[in-house]
Amino acid sequence: MSQNKNQLDDQWVVGFTDGEGCFNLDVHVKKDMRWGLQMQPEFTVVQHERDKQLLEDLKTKFQCGSVGVNRKDDTSTRYHYRVKSVRDLTKTINPFFEKNELRTQKKDEFEIFKEICSLMKDGYHLESLENFLKVDELGQSLRRRSGPKRGTRGVKVEEQVKILRERLKNNPDLK
Amino acid sequence: MSQNKNQLDDQWVVGFTDGEGCFNLDVHVKKDMRWGLQMQPEFTVVQHERDKQLLEDLKTKFQCGSVGVNRKDDTSTRYHYRVKSVRDLTKTINPFFEKNELRTQKKDEFEIFKEICSLMKDGYHLESLENFLKVDELGQSLRRRSGPKRGTRGVKVEEQVKILRERLKNNPDLK
Repeated sequence: MSQNKNQLDDQWVVGFTDGEGCFNLDVHVKKDMRWGLQMQPEFTVVQHERDKQLLEDLKTKFQCGSVGVNRKDDTSTRYHYRVKSVRDLTKTINPFFEKNELRTQKKDEFEIFKEICSLMKDGYHLESLENFLKVDELGQSLRRRSGPKRGTRGVKVEEQVKILRERLKNNPDLK
Repeated sequence: MSQNKNQLDDQWVVGFTDGEGCFNLDVHVKKDMRWGLQMQPEFTVVQHERDKQLLEDLKTKFQCGSVGVNRKDDTSTRYHYRVKSVRDLTKTINPFFEKNELRTQKKDEFEIFKEICSLMKDGYHLESLENFLKVDELGQSLRRRSGPKRGTRGVKVEEQVKILRERLKNNPDLK
């Protein structure tokens, strides 16, 4: 089909992403950030080490993102291909999946993800605490959609979000 | 891309199968069979109930197989698309993946699967106990390849295979 055997067909990438891809908003504690939290949207595909080359092929296709160790256990290592840069996501990844539509319910997750990236690209989440928490809520809805196991996140993140919600209640215009 | 939104692109099917598909040789106890066991090769794709329609679309594309409940828990139901008929596998499914090559290590599993189907189509496994156990061994290698979790099977099947191996040792020409 393709001239180069490592060159990935668009529809293959869509099918593989429908199976193995993940659109997520990572939120982690970072003390020196305005609200004590850092948000990063991420598109991730995880594979067993046997298929690491495919992740490299995805990187070659999209010309962005990186391949790294995802998790390791006694018997094997799993790698991820991941794109975290809002710029690369809005410029490359999201337009690809707009043009080549997903077929599973991941399509709905992608729609929320796209909204998150678009808001973050314009700095919406940095304008006020209210906005920051709105984007966080979109990320939570994404997490809930993708399954009960992924519906939870770290205790420290949850605690900080709770503190921020209280702060917002007491001062709705906090910048 | 396609005229009908439910019509699945070949390369999408390959990518989705690379992610979610499974080639397996199911072996289960069946007392009235020659060796007390029944073997059935099966191609399976499992999805959450939200994406049941996609499984129907696979059935429409391949014009064989069936969609049914795979497993159910308190919160959701998972469905499978499955093709078990050796005839449908050798006539439709296997030629499809010969023409449209898989990209992950599932390609190697498919090669073993194809060999199993081809042997079974010609009744090789019914010719002698030795042949039966050879095909079973191919199925085991398939199972081991697809991950440690799937490397084991029911105690009763294992017991019966052990009995058959003993019988073969004592009588290598058993028909």
